[in-house]
Amino acid sequence: MTDDKNPYRTPISELGKFGLIKHLTENFEIFNESTLNIVGDDAAVLNPQNKKVLVSSDMFVENVHFNLAYVPLKHLGYKVVVAGISDIAAMNAVPAQVLMSVAVSNRFPVEALAEIYEGIRQACRYYRLDLVGGDTVSSQTGLVIGITSIGYANENEIVYRKGVKPNDLVVISGDLGGAYFGLQVLERENVTFKSNPDFQPDLASYNYLLEKQLKPEARTDVKSLLKDLDVHPTSMIDISQGLASEIISLSQAGGVGFSIYEDKIPMDNQVLTTAEEFGINPVTGVLNGGEDYELLFTIPLSEHDKIKHNPNFSIIGHVTENKNNLLITKGNAQSIPLTSQGWEAYLRKSN
Amino acid sequence: MTDDKNPYRTPISELGKFGLIKHLTENFEIFNESTLNIVGDDAAVLNPQNKKVLVSSDMFVENVHFNLAYVPLKHLGYKVVVAGISDIAAMNAVPAQVLMSVAVSNRFPVEALAEIYEGIRQACRYYRLDLVGGDTVSSQTGLVIGITSIGYANENEIVYRKGVKPNDLVVISGDLGGAYFGLQVLERENVTFKSNPDFQPDLASYNYLLEKQLKPEARTDVKSLLKDLDVHPTSMIDISQGLASEIISLSQAGGVGFSIYEDKIPMDNQVLTTAEEFGINPVTGVLNGGEDYELLFTIPLSEHDKIKHNPNFSIIGHVTENKNNLLITKGNAQSIPLTSQGWEAYLRKSN
Repeated sequence: MTDDKNPYRTPISELGKFGLIKHLTENFEIFNESTLNIVGDDAAVLNPQNKKVLVSSDMFVENVHFNLAYVPLKHLGYKVVVAGISDIAAMNAVPAQVLMSVAVSNRFPVEALAEIYEGIRQACRYYRLDLVGGDTVSSQTGLVIGITSIGYANENEIVYRKGVKPNDLVVISGDLGGAYFGLQVLERENVTFKSNPDFQPDLASYNYLLEKQLKPEARTDVKSLLKDLDVHPTSMIDISQGLASEIISLSQAGGVGFSIYEDKIPMDNQVLTTAEEFGINPVTGVLNGGEDYELLFTIPLSEHDKIKHNPNFSIIGHVTENKNNLLITKGNAQSIPLTSQGWEAYLRKSN
Repeated sequence: MTDDKNPYRTPISELGKFGLIKHLTENFEIFNESTLNIVGDDAAVLNPQNKKVLVSSDMFVENVHFNLAYVPLKHLGYKVVVAGISDIAAMNAVPAQVLMSVAVSNRFPVEALAEIYEGIRQACRYYRLDLVGGDTVSSQTGLVIGITSIGYANENEIVYRKGVKPNDLVVISGDLGGAYFGLQVLERENVTFKSNPDFQPDLASYNYLLEKQLKPEARTDVKSLLKDLDVHPTSMIDISQGLASEIISLSQAGGVGFSIYEDKIPMDNQVLTTAEEFGINPVTGVLNGGEDYELLFTIPLSEHDKIKHNPNFSIIGHVTENKNNLLITKGNAQSIPLTSQGWEAYLRKSN
């Protein structure tokens, strides 16, 4: 369960609540001027320096969002931070602080909790985030991690979902489906391992998928990429639930329809080969799988030329007038409705 | 488990994630100008209007922090909000927004979740708070509720723990021990109920204790009470863990000692009579029980006359130089060390 080979497992009760929090957080640095006062008072004090404040909360539950049988604790800590700040990036803002709450069984040793915090610390260091608060509490059952992410932006920089307009182009960063097929590989290996603990899997050919699943990155770089291109997104959302869910959310927020072209969706070659190996339509993973943490945004048609050959971005469709029309077009074939229900029908067809 | 007598229990899956969040939050109002954009985007957008931003996160776990056998769901929702904003009040700031994350079993019906949110809504209405975000996720085990509380203050108004100075007076709002003895009564009734479900308990003589345990209030009024008295606290903390724990926290933050007088600690008459009935030293409940959500603060000795006859506040001791000296004096008798260990020894003696 931990990378640490030290067989000694310190019970949490040995440190006590005061000692535990100090032990877990003493190696964290402070990167942001907006952080005035950190862990150790009733609340953190932040100085927004005339900017608007963006805030988002998420909760991750053992055996619902992650399985400790195949997720290293350090990666779990890192990924929770990525998932949290991805919401701030999706508003075209810059994340700066996080608060972490962890509910953990008393049987969980201090070393395991320290692994989670080491992952959190590495993410904070990479993304220049300050850990400014939270809570460590007991759980009688599984591990639960809550994160609150805080970021800043000038008012005119913030991109809302409701800004989406008919005729806008639909753009995504990076490629999709990797996290979903990475999870399929991990779940298969976990089943194999249970029946034969000596089995040594060769996972090299899935390395990209496993990285997307176990150590995804938040696209906090997109804000400056778009600024350099002089591109002004009209709406933005992060792809945490799967492309279909995000399209439906944007449709509801803006009262618009969408037309997406399946063959324009960028997918890594490992996604295509692994999808074939598992007998799953790769688009299934993209539409329904989630956890890619790429950004989906819309831009005015007039900005097409600024982005069309950029290797960071792919235009995958356009926005339409009718909010009841969410369509995905398969090659030159017919368009299929991409509503919640239509989507389930589509899934059944493709499997 | 719910106050609702309707026998129909709607499965959460019937509404879906989008419908569920809309159903739970549609009756919430917006009270604060600092709230620019609410639930329904990747993140909330807040306008701090040149103030500093205070933020705090807490997590509450079933069968650790609450027992659904005797806590009505509406009260649970209310109390979680109170516990969250109490941290903001303890910085001498004004709470304005909350984000709620709830992890809940799929077997939990929509009506039960709606009861929790009704309690949250009532607290938001009473304290003029805006619900600006959060998450509703599945749990395979118990109920977990996370709250992030956000408030505002001018920089010169904020009161930190570290401001405490030797010779300051130690003051508390309200009275203590009610929540602890309310919990004792509820736990006893729960045991009685299990052995005899037809038993109708007469709880009228414990009404104050039960209210302190089931529906405490956050002392958001203390900030303006102190302003009207022209009193300037040097440090402040909320009494959530029990008086002993809060004194130790202040001692560590400020590098000071404390001398507390047991007979100065205000306790309601129901605390005294119930303590006697249960054979527990009432001071045990005050020092170790927690959940009173009163505020403890320190003021310069020079401000003694401004507060000494005020019915809202009690002076219970003073601050000393030596951080290793945390003493509680029992009437005219000897002083007993109030360290973590000393405290455990004290508990054993008094029981």
